[in-house]
Parts: sequence; structure tokens; C-alpha cells
Amino acid sequence: MNDVQPGATHLECTATGERFDSEALHTLSPAGKPLFARYDLDALRGRFTPESLRGRRPDLWRYAEVLPVRDPAARICLGEGFTPLLDAPRFADRIGMGGGRVWVKDEGQNPTGSFKARGLGMAVSRAKELGASAVALPSAGNAGSAAAAYGAAAGLPVHVVVPRDTPRPIVEEIRALGADLQLIDGLIDDCGRVVKQGVEEKGWFALSTLKEPYRVEGKKTMGYELFEQLGGRLPDVILYPTGGGTGLIGMWKAFDEMEALGWIGAERPRMVTVQASGCAPMVRAFEAGASFAEPWRGAATYASGLRVPGAVGDFLILRALRESGGTAVAISDAEMAEWVAHLGRDTGVFAAPEGGAVAAAAARLRASGFIGSDDEVVLFNTGSGLKYVGMEPV
Amino acid sequence: MNDVQPGATHLECTATGERFDSEALHTLSPAGKPLFARYDLDALRGRFTPESLRGRRPDLWRYAEVLPVRDPAARICLGEGFTPLLDAPRFADRIGMGGGRVWVKDEGQNPTGSFKARGLGMAVSRAKELGASAVALPSAGNAGSAAAAYGAAAGLPVHVVVPRDTPRPIVEEIRALGADLQLIDGLIDDCGRVVKQGVEEKGWFALSTLKEPYRVEGKKTMGYELFEQLGGRLPDVILYPTGGGTGLIGMWKAFDEMEALGWIGAERPRMVTVQASGCAPMVRAFEAGASFAEPWRGAATYASGLRVPGAVGDFLILRALRESGGTAVAISDAEMAEWVAHLGRDTGVFAAPEGGAVAAAAARLRASGFIGSDDEVVLFNTGSGLKYVGMEPV
Repeated sequence: MNDVQPGATHLECTATGERFDSEALHTLSPAGKPLFARYDLDALRGRFTPESLRGRRPDLWRYAEVLPVRDPAARICLGEGFTPLLDAPRFADRIGMGGGRVWVKDEGQNPTGSFKARGLGMAVSRAKELGASAVALPSAGNAGSAAAAYGAAAGLPVHVVVPRDTPRPIVEEIRALGADLQLIDGLIDDCGRVVKQGVEEKGWFALSTLKEPYRVEGKKTMGYELFEQLGGRLPDVILYPTGGGTGLIGMWKAFDEMEALGWIGAERPRMVTVQASGCAPMVRAFEAGASFAEPWRGAATYASGLRVPGAVGDFLILRALRESGGTAVAISDAEMAEWVAHLGRDTGVFAAPEGGAVAAAAARLRASGFIGSDDEVVLFNTGSGLKYVGMEPV
Repeated sequence: MNDVQPGATHLECTATGERFDSEALHTLSPAGKPLFARYDLDALRGRFTPESLRGRRPDLWRYAEVLPVRDPAARICLGEGFTPLLDAPRFADRIGMGGGRVWVKDEGQNPTGSFKARGLGMAVSRAKELGASAVALPSAGNAGSAAAAYGAAAGLPVHVVVPRDTPRPIVEEIRALGADLQLIDGLIDDCGRVVKQGVEEKGWFALSTLKEPYRVEGKKTMGYELFEQLGGRLPDVILYPTGGGTGLIGMWKAFDEMEALGWIGAERPRMVTVQASGCAPMVRAFEAGASFAEPWRGAATYASGLRVPGAVGDFLILRALRESGGTAVAISDAEMAEWVAHLGRDTGVFAAPEGGAVAAAAARLRASGFIGSDDEVVLFNTGSGLKYVGMEPV
């Protein structure tokens, strides 16, 4: 996998199926929807197998054949991915699992302490490979520090725009990594408008969630890892804190790829979106049976990664929840804080509030019977609690 | 390596060579010096080889044959070790390397965001395997949160005593992980007195640096990793921020083991201890040609991991520096902060002040000629900068 890779064959609009050249920089499709990278999976079938992964490097580049970066020298690597999947027997007891098991996928051990490293590592690598001279993004926080890190490693200027009340550790991290940082009175969508201006006036390449095709390619590796780390199977239920939803969409894409590669059949884990009570557009849309989500007004939660009023991938998230027999759950900030403490005491993982939200959701879904006592359940802790020190539940 | 392992054959006093049973809980030797675990390396030679590691789990338990824990079920694992070794070409340029190379070993990607996870993961696993019912330690900060994490994962009560001015992120982390935490007006040696009282009155088992034999066994895996990650060789120079010095002592021990195993010959990297100007007992002793270090009075630095006035392993540190042709360097807090920024911009790693100290030392030693322009150099960043947010250079 240190050889030059074929990369994607083309990009495809997730709404219309229209095809585009994968070797030029792209943002959204003409339909205003995300583009997915597609690979020649038929050619990889039988060659890119779970067995072929043995002995490979312990980061997400182990899945090089289904990643878009072609030249190994273009991979900007800080050690992203292949985070530990931690057995959590005492937490399982707490929520009343019987013969089932609970694992915590601890994404806080990524570079920059969050799952954002996966997507931004891939997007920055690919943007540089395709000739971008500066990148920019609006962020709820963690994506900004991840972009700053990969830009620094790549020697590429990075412009980050975040809400003024982004957690201080994240702000300091972005600054320490040398990025140009703007703090805005507003939410992530307001930050997006500032980035748009820089794109138009200064030629920045924007790395906004799902508005370029490669962050989701980095995030999808979480799906491949679950399969590999569980010894060649997927869990029954995956609980995932959902802001922009790239990780959930990415894993869903990975499962389709894995089926095409012959790794799994048609079965899928039940996908569960977890949001904050103070910003739950996907939960509201899921419960209403809608195909798209209306933007949430007055978003308020200390889980800054969940303070995302609207997501361009809304229809992809809702489709994955429904096709998988999953659900969507909203958790209050007070519950998040309570379950961060439970998770810490039971597992040794100091989780972000988003991780606390997922833990709380697991308890609620176990109590409701959605999670059976014999199920195998994976909780995603998307970041380290260190990134939120000083933040209080709202 | 998921089989039951032989573990250590015995413990040995690092000062007198006296032997002790390795299957009982031990603290210091009767001579008041650290004990080292010894293995039957002759029996492992030819069987435990670099090639045998291929395909093993990407954490420090991949080196199970030279670790003290016997029962795989007794390994408390949160994903510790096998941290990335990151090539740093732009930093190398900054300090004027010619044909040489610089790597950053980013220990901030360990569980709890610091290298302390290695030692405490091992010590807590082994303490539990040998029957301890509660563990305790004085800490400058990061060891406390690592102990709290492994205690939580093991279901073992943990008592942590830290200085009152320990960085807030670390204090919050220790609390979130459910440990019993005491904040003391004083330094780590004052904290040690509180722990000693708990040991005598409440039967805690103390995990103070080098005062039990297994933290160093976890830390030594950094030496094995360097060899493996460099493709079967060691660097010319290793710069290591030194508080208690367990990591430096551990790597030095690992190199001896690797020689006995037939992996390397008699050659060694030049070992460099980096301390804070405000607390530099090893630098002072090294320069004075002393075999032991006098405790430092009035220790003051914002690099809390370097605020260690005296180390029980002082003679082992000084011996490794001298035998390797190494040196010892003191760096001011202002320089640390400056070089944290350089390192961040050049590599994408948001380093702890200790990592900044090492970066500054590399520049100084390159300028002095101690580091040649063609040398291969490894800088240890022992923790994430996130753990020090809010701290200012003193």
C-alpha cells in the first residue's frame, strides 16, 4: 500500500448520480448536493481483502486502495485513524446489557484529539495533491484545529473561521498550529459566509463539511476499522453523535463498499444519530418522516460539535437511519455531563460532551428496548474531553 | 502474543544487583533504589524478533514477551503506545539539518494525552494482577490522570495527590475519571508525603515513579518502537524531556534488552536530557560530573512535568547520558513557548511545553555542533498541548 494507488474512478452526485472527473478540485455538484468518490471495487474484489490488511500501518492509510489520494508522497500523515475500540464491560452492566457487549470507539486519540483528523487529513492531502494553494473552513471547533494541523504538516496556508464562544482549548490549539483564525459572533453557518467571501475574493479552497468530496472519504474509514477490529463483523447498533453527519454518512458508504468488495452481505448495523436537545434538526426530521431537515433555530448546547443547525447531507443521514432500522435521539446538556462522568468512571475514557450524549442515548435506548440485552453496540466518542475544559452545560 | 507470557524471571536492584521475587508486590529495594524486572532473554533470542512483530496489535502489548504481565486478561488496555513517529522535514530545515532527519515521537496521542499512559497502564495492570486493592500516587499532573484512567478501566480505586497549581485540564480530567483527588500546596515531593501516609494508614499501593518496578517497563516500549518504526535501526540522537526520567531510563534498559536479544549491537543513540531552567537538577549534576543529583530548590516552570526537584533514578539517568556520549540541556520557559509555536507551525503537532523544550534543545545542540547536520534525531513530545491550556511561562 505504499505503491501509487488507482484512486477514485470518478465523482458522483449523491442526489442525481451525475458523474464528474475526480482529478480536478470540486465542491458541491451543480444540484447543490455532495459528491461521492467512486472506486473500481470490482477490480479490487478478491485483492483488497481483510487478510490483505495484516501487518499494515496502524492508521487510516492502511485502506489506501479505497482512498482518493494516489501518490503515497501526497499523504499528509499525523497518525490519524485506527483508534482503539475499547471493550466496556462495566458500562454495559450499568445500562443493563445481558449477554451483549458495548465498545467505545475512542476517537479522542486521533491527532488534535478528535475524529475530525480523519476527514481533514484526507481533504488537505487531496487538496494539495490537486493543486490548492490555500484552504479554508468554517468550523464548530474541532474541524478547525484538525485543518490547522494538516495544513501545517503540508506547508499549506489554512484559514479557519469559528464562533467566538468556541472552547478555549480548541482556539489555542488552532493558534498554536499557525492557522489564520477569525472568531465570529454567530454559529457555524455565519462562519460559512465569511469563508465563502474568502473563496470568492482570495481563491481559498473551502473544506466545509461535505461541500468537497474527501472529508467523507477519511471519515468512512471508521466503518472499515469497526469490521477489522471486531474480527470480521459489524456490530448490531452504532450510536454516533451527529453534527454535520459526515462520519455516519461515511460509514454507511463504507458498508456499501464492503458489500461490493465481498466483505459483508446485505445486513447493516442499526444506525443511531445522537443530537443535543438544544440543536436536534435530524431528530425532528426523522420523527416527522421528512426526507430533508429544516434548519434549527436558536441552536444552543455546550457540545460544540453538535451545534450545527443545518447539514447539507441531511437526506443521506435520514436515509441511512431509515434503511438500517435505526433511530434518532436528542440528549440534554445536563444528561451529557452526567454520562461523561459515568463513562469516565466505567471505562477510563475522558469523553467529549458528544461522547456523553452517545452514552446517555445508549442507556435510554436500552431502557426502551431498542437496544436488546444481547446486542453488540458501538459508542463513538468523537473527541477528548480535554478539548471542552471550561465549557458548562447550557 | 495473546498467550500467557512467561513474564519476568525476577527483580533486580539497580544499585546492588540483589535479586527479588517478581511475583509479589514490591516498591524500592532495601538499598532504597529502583528495581528492574529481568527476563529470560536468552530463551527469547531468535523467537522474539522484529519480524515476529509483524501484524501484531498497534499498542505496547505487541512487546508482550518482554513485559511483566503474564495473563492477557490482566492487561488493562486503552490503546497506549505505538504512537506515531512523524517525519519533520520543515523543522529539520529550521534548525539547519543538511542530509539528516528529524522525527517527532508524538506521545500526545496516547490515552489521556501523554506518555504517562504507558507506565501507568503497565503498573496498574501489574498491581491488579498481583492483588493490590487500591493504588495511589503523587504526580506533577499527567501521571495522575493516566493512573485515574487505568484505575477506572480496571475497576480499581485510585488516589491521586497533585500540586494545587496543576494545569486545570489535567485536574478536570482526573476528576472526570472518578479518582479520589487531593490538591496540595506544594510540589510533587510534598504530594509524596501525603501518599506515604495513605500507604501506611490505608494500605494503598503506591505507584510513585520508579518506586515500583513496572512503570519503567511500560515506558521502555518507546525504545522498542523507535527501532521498529525506523525500520530496524535506532537514531543517532534522542532528546527527551526529563522530570522523573523513567522514559529515558526505560529506553536505555530496552536497548540493553535488544542487544541481548540480538536486535542491535553495542552502539547506542546519544541520549539527551532536557530540563527547565527553573528546575534542572540533572543538568547541574551532569555538568558537575556528579553521579547523583542534589534536589533543586525553588523549582519553577510551567512545564509541570519538568517540575520535579529530585529523582530516585538520578544515577541511572546520569549514567545513560555519559555512557551514550549524550548531554543535558536546560531551557527557559520563554524558549519553550517559542518552540512550541515553531513546532506547531512546522509539523502540525500541538506540543506540551516539554515538547517545546526538546525542540529548543535540538536547535541549540545543532547550533553548537553536538547534533551534526547529517544526524538522525528523534524529539519526544511527551504530551498534548491541550493539557496545558491556560498555563503561562514563568
